[in-house]
Amino acid sequence: MTNAFTSSGLFGDMFQDPAIAAQFAASVVLQHAVVFETAWTETLLSLGAITPKDAKTALAALRDFDPDLEAIASSSDINGLPVPGLVDQMRAGLKEPNAKAIHTGTTSQDVLDTVLVLTLMDVFDRLEARLISVIAVLAQLDKDADGTLMARTRMQAALPLPVSVRLQSWAAPLRDHHERLHGLRAHVGQVQLGGPVGLRDVPDGQGDAAATELARRLGLRMGPVWHSNRTPILDVGHWLTLVTGSLGKMGQDIALMAQQGIDDIKLAGGGGSSAMPHKANPVLAEALVTLARFVGAQQGGLTQAMIHEQERSGASWALEWMLLPPMLEATGAALRHAETLLGQIERIGSNREA
Amino acid sequence: MTNAFTSSGLFGDMFQDPAIAAQFAASVVLQHAVVFETAWTETLLSLGAITPKDAKTALAALRDFDPDLEAIASSSDINGLPVPGLVDQMRAGLKEPNAKAIHTGTTSQDVLDTVLVLTLMDVFDRLEARLISVIAVLAQLDKDADGTLMARTRMQAALPLPVSVRLQSWAAPLRDHHERLHGLRAHVGQVQLGGPVGLRDVPDGQGDAAATELARRLGLRMGPVWHSNRTPILDVGHWLTLVTGSLGKMGQDIALMAQQGIDDIKLAGGGGSSAMPHKANPVLAEALVTLARFVGAQQGGLTQAMIHEQERSGASWALEWMLLPPMLEATGAALRHAETLLGQIERIGSNREA
Amino acid sequence: MTNAFTSSGLFGDMFQDPAIAAQFAASVVLQHAVVFETAWTETLLSLGAITPKDAKTALAALRDFDPDLEAIASSSDINGLPVPGLVDQMRAGLKEPNAKAIHTGTTSQDVLDTVLVLTLMDVFDRLEARLISVIAVLAQLDKDADGTLMARTRMQAALPLPVSVRLQSWAAPLRDHHERLHGLRAHVGQVQLGGPVGLRDVPDGQGDAAATELARRLGLRMGPVWHSNRTPILDVGHWLTLVTGSLGKMGQDIALMAQQGIDDIKLAGGGGSSAMPHKANPVLAEALVTLARFVGAQQGGLTQAMIHEQERSGASWALEWMLLPPMLEATGAALRHAETLLGQIERIGSNREA
Amino acid sequence: MTNAFTSSGLFGDMFQDPAIAAQFAASVVLQHAVVFETAWTETLLSLGAITPKDAKTALAALRDFDPDLEAIASSSDINGLPVPGLVDQMRAGLKEPNAKAIHTGTTSQDVLDTVLVLTLMDVFDRLEARLISVIAVLAQLDKDADGTLMARTRMQAALPLPVSVRLQSWAAPLRDHHERLHGLRAHVGQVQLGGPVGLRDVPDGQGDAAATELARRLGLRMGPVWHSNRTPILDVGHWLTLVTGSLGKMGQDIALMAQQGIDDIKLAGGGGSSAMPHKANPVLAEALVTLARFVGAQQGGLTQAMIHEQERSGASWALEWMLLPPMLEATGAALRHAETLLGQIERIGSNREA
Repeated sequence: MTNAFTSSGLFGDMFQDPAIAAQFAASVVLQHAVVFETAWTETLLSLGAITPKDAKTALAALRDFDPDLEAIASSSDINGLPVPGLVDQMRAGLKEPNAKAIHTGTTSQDVLDTVLVLTLMDVFDRLEARLISVIAVLAQLDKDADGTLMARTRMQAALPLPVSVRLQSWAAPLRDHHERLHGLRAHVGQVQLGGPVGLRDVPDGQGDAAATELARRLGLRMGPVWHSNRTPILDVGHWLTLVTGSLGKMGQDIALMAQQGIDDIKLAGGGGSSAMPHKANPVLAEALVTLARFVGAQQGGLTQAMIHEQERSGASWALEWMLLPPMLEATGAALRHAETLLGQIERIGSNREA
Repeated sequence: MTNAFTSSGLFGDMFQDPAIAAQFAASVVLQHAVVFETAWTETLLSLGAITPKDAKTALAALRDFDPDLEAIASSSDINGLPVPGLVDQMRAGLKEPNAKAIHTGTTSQDVLDTVLVLTLMDVFDRLEARLISVIAVLAQLDKDADGTLMARTRMQAALPLPVSVRLQSWAAPLRDHHERLHGLRAHVGQVQLGGPVGLRDVPDGQGDAAATELARRLGLRMGPVWHSNRTPILDVGHWLTLVTGSLGKMGQDIALMAQQGIDDIKLAGGGGSSAMPHKANPVLAEALVTLARFVGAQQGGLTQAMIHEQERSGASWALEWMLLPPMLEATGAALRHAETLLGQIERIGSNREA
Repeated sequence: MTNAFTSSGLFGDMFQDPAIAAQFAASVVLQHAVVFETAWTETLLSLGAITPKDAKTALAALRDFDPDLEAIASSSDINGLPVPGLVDQMRAGLKEPNAKAIHTGTTSQDVLDTVLVLTLMDVFDRLEARLISVIAVLAQLDKDADGTLMARTRMQAALPLPVSVRLQSWAAPLRDHHERLHGLRAHVGQVQLGGPVGLRDVPDGQGDAAATELARRLGLRMGPVWHSNRTPILDVGHWLTLVTGSLGKMGQDIALMAQQGIDDIKLAGGGGSSAMPHKANPVLAEALVTLARFVGAQQGGLTQAMIHEQERSGASWALEWMLLPPMLEATGAALRHAETLLGQIERIGSNREA
Repeated sequence: MTNAFTSSGLFGDMFQDPAIAAQFAASVVLQHAVVFETAWTETLLSLGAITPKDAKTALAALRDFDPDLEAIASSSDINGLPVPGLVDQMRAGLKEPNAKAIHTGTTSQDVLDTVLVLTLMDVFDRLEARLISVIAVLAQLDKDADGTLMARTRMQAALPLPVSVRLQSWAAPLRDHHERLHGLRAHVGQVQLGGPVGLRDVPDGQGDAAATELARRLGLRMGPVWHSNRTPILDVGHWLTLVTGSLGKMGQDIALMAQQGIDDIKLAGGGGSSAMPHKANPVLAEALVTLARFVGAQQGGLTQAMIHEQERSGASWALEWMLLPPMLEATGAALRHAETLLGQIERIGSNREA
């Protein structure tokens, strides 16, 4: 769901990725939020900050939690984000001190940032699987390649080049990005826990212990509060620009190779034209260029969210919500298209000498 | 529908605009496409390029057209855009020469660009209505204003300033943008008609007459083919950056004025915090900043789509589809928020001297 | 002088424009500042706000003013901009009330913004002259064109196209941009006069009269204070993206046409390679693409400067100084290159049918 | 030398960094180019690809090389880059086969990319030294901090916060960026050696050995050809956005803290106003915001250079030259300003409770 037009259904899945969009569906986000709050109540219990009885009641409420999305939406229209309304619903029906056994010591940002991290871990799994596939297809193409093509520098014919070298110029950066994903996942897979203003002071004197325990329960790593240090978000965006940028370069190359007169590649299944039925357009190759330029432009916007004033910037934080999710979808789409496009190759390199 | 997260329902309508998104719904776009094709068949008829009998059959088919969205989506996954699949459906069941009475002489870009223009005309109506409202609220606030506040330059107290001057600094650019909308609408409200490669040569020798007639039927203006000249799209984006930029400036001012210690404004209905119930956050003021930075970043991307190679660039054209619609929604949301926010003002200017 | 590398001399004038850079030289800017201050003192005199005697002394000081650039630079390192240091120097040696006959009632922003406007008027003259030349060369090429080339959509061969149509697709947007320049010049050519916080209240009760008189003396138009309304700057940037974008499209087309195998254009004077002496690279065509993408990216940054908080934002204002001047130089270079490149055309369109 | 206006002298060094600009001076770049070519000739010798006699003559020519910058500039105006002209000059006066002992087997991109890497290594040294200083000043401030201030979330007063926590929120990301620099330097510090089209095939069959030897001689690491894989450049840009982004956040905080009415910080040496002598503007704090937004916008442009078509894209490669150097200067300036600004702090945190 990248925007109202591209996700209207009219463009199929050319510029969106339903599988990745699904990770941002209300139900999934709310489920992640319940996982966060449950782990937090358990953390409070394990550190002796709440009684087993209070914990039991709170955990039962979280287990049976049935969110009212409409009410959450209404509260967001006032609060700018869903967490205050969500926590009110989670606590509804609980009396003190049971209500306090939920969320106390954390803040909206702890919930939303950690939920985003959990979402990113899932999205990374999908992106990685596709990246591996693309790399594998390229490796197979390279294995089968035996021809040459005319290398081009500054768009001019330069010298003959084994097809294999062109293919490796596409694969090598993707392999690098894949290697890098491991470190990125570890870096980004970090719990957010700071409380209202980043003091991480609940339970009293045990904030770091709580963060460690919370992280363990969520399968994330412990680290310092990053409320106003948005480096991890920028790092994710950067990685997405690298992946789509490398795919965009490949797409541009393929579109150039497919020109009549150049004929360095033959693709099956090109797109048709409403007016020129004889055409076989390298639609997916062009889409790779589009998606790369799109993701890159979003990263230019994301940099502006680094200026995250004071302990929490509503303005800068929300800018991330507007920019990052479509970058993830666009990257997902680009990887899908890359694999399909490479599978459409019937010939690569020139047969003209044959 | 700005993205999967912001339009999940979790954020209400804070970062989207359903009324504007609705203009990009498949049903509305397809209806516009039918309007285009109908006007085109009528144009062909009026110029004597098709027989009344063929026209009648074709127009009946268009009148009764019931699109199969799923099939269109599938065709888009191959063709990169919906028009080839759509035209196939429109012509289904028609025999030659009746089928030729639909779409012949135009191309996918003629349909999609003209549909986008028709959509923009509707969106401009909505944006204009809201802009007028915001300007009116500001005028009323100005009429009622009698206090002063401390002018600030470089964020430092400078000299006392009548509240009215600050209000006028918000209103004046919006009035300018409103005035400019009239010219923008005329400029952008232009039919696209070029045929496969921009020759505008159907009916033979009567291309310009056809464009004039088509424009008349669609309530648009006649102009040259703009397949590869994307100036109008950039102009729309620019206007959106101006509107949201001016609102973002107002939002930033209000957020600064609302700081405790500054207290130059008192707002009703501030947003709450999940951890600090005493807070009244200037949520809408911050959202104006977010939306302005978002729209501005998209314009940076849209500039890259100017490099629209040859007679039609699939890569650059599609980039517009990814960037422009969320800019329109963000601008719609910003105008809504601005009006609401201004309505929340209980006091503006300092009472400290009172 | 676009940056330390591109203006090191190593790249000649490929990515810079010395004639436009010269308009930003300290001496020229200071001369414009003297023109502003002189016109202001004369305005104060004409409105009876200062005595003829004080005016005479002040004007003499301005006439004989010999700035100490080093001292101005030092003061800028503290003040963030040159005007406080500059005004101190202008007033040096004058006693009250003579000193007050200079600058009083204006502020740093009045000086710098008006100076920038004066600079822009000069730069527009140069850009316009070059734009006219490019359009004229295109018109001549069109007049001489008699061949065809293969139109390409989505980078694929579509249908034969008269060369003339391709040339007109390059010329038409440039003619539009040229027409638009007249209105832009009028719009941007506006005096800035607001005083410290935008009240425009000097002389007392005659602020608008003073602005009118000042504008008249400077050959600019009178208008409201635009301290915090940066629309004119954004408009300039937008126009530059249009001009370079249209040239970038032409450059991309030419680079594609020059490919061996396509051979739709033959250029004299292509660039050489250090390793492949047989090559004739379409260097200027590529530079047009580079410059367009560069200017477009800067506009993405310039939009962020719209959020100009309160009566003067040091942060946002300075962002304009960093972004706009290289956009102007890049546009100047693009126009130069376009004319040269078009002059290198030895053949356009295919001779293959001949 | 960030542009003609900011580097006119009128703004002192507020928006530029002469020490970093100096690394891009023609003399320094040419010296690096001589270092590259010398190491290459020595590499050819060590691998037995040229005779000791030819090597000796060639190395003597390189040792005595006295470049004619004007001629290089002229050649760049034709070739788009200085290397062809430079190599011609280096070989001037040498007869074959001596001339071939210089540059043969490499290409312009090998020279310029490797020279850029050598430059970056020097620039990193400077940036690192300044980053260490900023971190040290923050550590000292933290050591001395004993007060509190009002934490602010969404620009609203939240809860009291030890000053130390705010200071650590500034220092922590900078420490992370510093740690990361080590890995970045290793990753980027990579020789470029591919020859005309990236085959790395000189001497015959010994290309990788040559790259290893060349890297060793230049103090860089050996790695694959990265002609069309611009990841390292994007990585540098990303790191610069992180550093300036974190400093921009600190600058924004300080500007907000310095507001009268907030008074959370007292700065010595604020900037003056030409119209309001009583003001003490937080000029450097604002400059940090400006520089961060500037660098971030450039990164948005740099992403577009990832789409580096075929074996060498003149258009995309040159885009890097336009964008990266001012990012480096801006980062240098931001680090300088940060240290100065922190040194201007006379009080941080509120004394109001005292």
